[in-house]
Amino acid sequence: MRAGHIEYLVTNLKEASRFYIDTLGFVLTDSDSTHLYLRGLEDRHHHCLTLTKAETPGVGHLAFRVRREEDLLALEALYRSKGCRVRWTESGDEEGLGKALRVQDQFGFPLEFYSEMEHKEWMIRSFQEHWGGKVTRLDHFNLLLPDVGAACQWYREALGFGCTEITETEDERPATWAAWLRRKPTCHDIALMTGKGPRVHHAGFFVVDRNSILDCADILAASGYVSSMERGPGRHGVSNAFFLYLRDPDGNRLELYTGDYLSADPDWEPIVWKLNDPQRQTFWGAPTPASWFNDAMQVVDLESSSFVPLADPRISDRPDYLRGSR
Amino acid sequence: MRAGHIEYLVTNLKEASRFYIDTLGFVLTDSDSTHLYLRGLEDRHHHCLTLTKAETPGVGHLAFRVRREEDLLALEALYRSKGCRVRWTESGDEEGLGKALRVQDQFGFPLEFYSEMEHKEWMIRSFQEHWGGKVTRLDHFNLLLPDVGAACQWYREALGFGCTEITETEDERPATWAAWLRRKPTCHDIALMTGKGPRVHHAGFFVVDRNSILDCADILAASGYVSSMERGPGRHGVSNAFFLYLRDPDGNRLELYTGDYLSADPDWEPIVWKLNDPQRQTFWGAPTPASWFNDAMQVVDLESSSFVPLADPRISDRPDYLRGSR
Amino acid sequence: MRAGHIEYLVTNLKEASRFYIDTLGFVLTDSDSTHLYLRGLEDRHHHCLTLTKAETPGVGHLAFRVRREEDLLALEALYRSKGCRVRWTESGDEEGLGKALRVQDQFGFPLEFYSEMEHKEWMIRSFQEHWGGKVTRLDHFNLLLPDVGAACQWYREALGFGCTEITETEDERPATWAAWLRRKPTCHDIALMTGKGPRVHHAGFFVVDRNSILDCADILAASGYVSSMERGPGRHGVSNAFFLYLRDPDGNRLELYTGDYLSADPDWEPIVWKLNDPQRQTFWGAPTPASWFNDAMQVVDLESSSFVPLADPRISDRPDYLRGSR
Amino acid sequence: MRAGHIEYLVTNLKEASRFYIDTLGFVLTDSDSTHLYLRGLEDRHHHCLTLTKAETPGVGHLAFRVRREEDLLALEALYRSKGCRVRWTESGDEEGLGKALRVQDQFGFPLEFYSEMEHKEWMIRSFQEHWGGKVTRLDHFNLLLPDVGAACQWYREALGFGCTEITETEDERPATWAAWLRRKPTCHDIALMTGKGPRVHHAGFFVVDRNSILDCADILAASGYVSSMERGPGRHGVSNAFFLYLRDPDGNRLELYTGDYLSADPDWEPIVWKLNDPQRQTFWGAPTPASWFNDAMQVVDLESSSFVPLADPRISDRPDYLRGSR
Repeated sequence: MRAGHIEYLVTNLKEASRFYIDTLGFVLTDSDSTHLYLRGLEDRHHHCLTLTKAETPGVGHLAFRVRREEDLLALEALYRSKGCRVRWTESGDEEGLGKALRVQDQFGFPLEFYSEMEHKEWMIRSFQEHWGGKVTRLDHFNLLLPDVGAACQWYREALGFGCTEITETEDERPATWAAWLRRKPTCHDIALMTGKGPRVHHAGFFVVDRNSILDCADILAASGYVSSMERGPGRHGVSNAFFLYLRDPDGNRLELYTGDYLSADPDWEPIVWKLNDPQRQTFWGAPTPASWFNDAMQVVDLESSSFVPLADPRISDRPDYLRGSR
Repeated sequence: MRAGHIEYLVTNLKEASRFYIDTLGFVLTDSDSTHLYLRGLEDRHHHCLTLTKAETPGVGHLAFRVRREEDLLALEALYRSKGCRVRWTESGDEEGLGKALRVQDQFGFPLEFYSEMEHKEWMIRSFQEHWGGKVTRLDHFNLLLPDVGAACQWYREALGFGCTEITETEDERPATWAAWLRRKPTCHDIALMTGKGPRVHHAGFFVVDRNSILDCADILAASGYVSSMERGPGRHGVSNAFFLYLRDPDGNRLELYTGDYLSADPDWEPIVWKLNDPQRQTFWGAPTPASWFNDAMQVVDLESSSFVPLADPRISDRPDYLRGSR
Repeated sequence: MRAGHIEYLVTNLKEASRFYIDTLGFVLTDSDSTHLYLRGLEDRHHHCLTLTKAETPGVGHLAFRVRREEDLLALEALYRSKGCRVRWTESGDEEGLGKALRVQDQFGFPLEFYSEMEHKEWMIRSFQEHWGGKVTRLDHFNLLLPDVGAACQWYREALGFGCTEITETEDERPATWAAWLRRKPTCHDIALMTGKGPRVHHAGFFVVDRNSILDCADILAASGYVSSMERGPGRHGVSNAFFLYLRDPDGNRLELYTGDYLSADPDWEPIVWKLNDPQRQTFWGAPTPASWFNDAMQVVDLESSSFVPLADPRISDRPDYLRGSR
Repeated sequence: MRAGHIEYLVTNLKEASRFYIDTLGFVLTDSDSTHLYLRGLEDRHHHCLTLTKAETPGVGHLAFRVRREEDLLALEALYRSKGCRVRWTESGDEEGLGKALRVQDQFGFPLEFYSEMEHKEWMIRSFQEHWGGKVTRLDHFNLLLPDVGAACQWYREALGFGCTEITETEDERPATWAAWLRRKPTCHDIALMTGKGPRVHHAGFFVVDRNSILDCADILAASGYVSSMERGPGRHGVSNAFFLYLRDPDGNRLELYTGDYLSADPDWEPIVWKLNDPQRQTFWGAPTPASWFNDAMQVVDLESSSFVPLADPRISDRPDYLRGSR
């Protein structure tokens, strides 16, 4: 159905709480000594972001919501057929979540699929409690991995994602450098970018409009989080969205995101960008800082709980005009 | 899939062009001596609004896009089984449109179903050509009919729409006074309201944010269209959207609409409102003018080209606090 | 120099605090058992609004800031020459205020003039504490009185106000129905309107932009203050400002106001409106509720502390199209 | 009274017209073979920006409006007493302008003082003609010169400007690195910054709100002016304003500017910033490009029409963290 929730590892829950709840305006659904379960103003379910106390920042798992419980069985069979490690969790193993399927997929990512999550109060009309970034919901995941072409094919053909936009290299026979893929009919639920991986580049959270992002930038700057604002505010070329990239106190990255488009039609032809088009990343032309290309979040191995080892991409992980910026 | 396009009857194409194109910012795709074919800034297809020259204002037909051509056959069988008049049009009979199924449905509405429409340039990034209301796309139809309960059941059970919000009467055994139904995962593709019908109350067109609506109100007021602004700008209770209702030079009604929510989840429980809740219609409490309840667009009989006769509703067509306003 | 501060009488300080501080976002500078001293986000002085506990709502006094202490002496002489009652208050008699001159002017209004007020922290960059209506500063007073012509002449000739806009009756020899007068170079510091008086129609408080007003409307509606929103949001014809009129829990009226213009030039020619122009009040044409014309705040007699008796205007207090609305 | 107008030298009037009128939305008042006279949407006078055809880009003159013609005589005497070259122009010598005093001031800048300018239509309510950047009026001049301390003293003491904000060096005995000075009660009419001079860094033009700036950025990007956007959009620390710096097709710099504050009070204490505070320039922390420090517009010698020779500043012209960026 859609990107469902994500688990970020943080080293200090109190610091994280000040950043995510007091400043960005996430709604706290539940907490225990090692977790904060957060949702957005538009969410009617238990959480879209879990913050888990850990030694090292990174991503615990990424979860997709599916329509029915039987879809989980089909996914189990599908991933087993690819030789992936698969494991079931029972209802309540993850706070607020029904029965779920956990998979370390063939690209190294710790995925979760589920069809049921506990309902929670809809805050959309409780305007008196909206605050800071006024995050409404999770919008998408952005992943770094060495072979975007293979992963793109997998998501489109095996998992039924539609492709809305593509970035190609400028070679004679262009390779797919990045792809924006969707289940829900927006620009994307998942983006795949060429890079050292498997890593999660960021999760994108939706906000209502550009003003929410500008107000949030003011609040971050006034709250001592100037250095948290890594890139933006600005307009993307890809996705057409207005954005602000943030680093949490542990360096985990998230994006505030608004103003993309609907893509409900089955005959949608992917928009194609060239990697070196300077308006691709930032329509207004402002340069992207090197950290945005260099840094990303490592992902956990579901069995060992250590991070999954990284592999280098075979093609460059950034536009030519930024090759010196590593 | 979704609300696809609508045909408004207008008595003067030149006047209509000044209103819809020069002032609201619709993009002109095509025209001939009796039609203007318009699309929004986000549309990648031929039209979402057709203006057809006619003696009397009203609505020619409402169209839904379906996924595949074979879905059209299933719909033909379905409507025939209900005894509805059905007719096929060939590709190109309607400018830019593929093969389509036209139905006078059991509630009297002239519907069209289609799976293919000619592709047109995406204007979303051509900001230098965005203007006026900056309409991005068709969002929904709002219909008036005597028996909302029966139509709601039909759309949910036979056509697979989800129900996001409901308005009930305040009787001991509450009747469904209105329903918001969706195929695409937003608040709605179609709303059904109790009233003299079949009539189309309005088509809702999406804009990017509240500022676009405020700017449009300023432009309308400065262009001699003060009296076109029937209601708003304001915030809806139902749908949570920010809105402005307009009457075109012929009195046809449309809504500029933004800021509703995603409703992708299959376990969405309809939000239930009471008819007499004053914040249901306008969250900020401003009164709705009587014309908004009294006036609506009649619909064409596909065979005779005259308007479909109207029937009165069995329950009141407005909240108690407005009963005197007829 | 400019409109400085105003004193509203409220019957319940706790209710008033919830409305003005918790919901509209005024900053609390100081309080005692019978007063709340409030300032805006842009104020660098002690208060722009005083809420004083009283039996009956109304206005205690209106204050103008003058440049130098010696200007107070000139004003004393001026008002004495008109036979007005005049009285000095010492520094600190009013919390945070220097030596001040209090005058019951010839039109019945309780005025205060002062040149010094205690400095307080500038909250303009403390975005993490901005909230609700995000009121930045007092902008203007709007007064109702029977003879606008005489008062307008007084403010222009004796007090050196500039006149930016005027509303005239539609008689052959038009009378001045209302006038917008300024010391600081904006649209106005004081507006005079024809009506039963002396009464204060409202004080106008500035906010940064239209979004602040829309956000505030959402917060008011979600906080149980639906009925506090008397008129708007909308665009004025006069002043060109974007506005929302509010009634506090006691019925005292204030305006959130933004987007007027600078009027620094000495050769500014007043903009002239006709009373019955429907775009004069609301550029978008929405009707003004009768309460807006009927209700206003009575003002205190500085000596007796009772309200100043009212006199009827000699010309109509509203446009023809609203004459039936009393 | 206030910053009045400025003359930019451009090498191609047609290119300049496309940039300033078609894209930024300035209103064309008048033109001849070598000039375009432009005003903003809020201007009621002939021009606030003159574009003059020339071999080399730069600034022809900067003009301040004074209250009365006799003030011009006082200024003549004042500048003559400082040994400055002074010259009178007759009404109409500059299109739309009354009698004016031209001065090459002691800091090398070509200044003009005037009290009368032809009235022109107020476009503020003609929303259907607002476009692009929706520039409303000239707000301020920003000048680079070697000795800010001396010039600041001159403007405050001889010309009666108020000082709203100051930037100091971080030395034990801090020098004034920059000063924001005002006649009209806003943040500034003129800013003085330490640098190679005399040069004009930019003229700042006011727009209504942040959205106007974001919309303008989109339009510039879509119109081929990506590289015109030199810095921003962002929030200033100094002035608190929201800004976007632009370079016209000749490299002349201007700022779109909104959201500063009123400073009407005579007891305003200047806000003091340290030069190396990273939030001073951009409250959100984004780095300022080196070009912003390196480039500026040379100014014309009123007698010879060649550019005034430049002198180096005695203290650094930029923060420590940017010293390597020349």
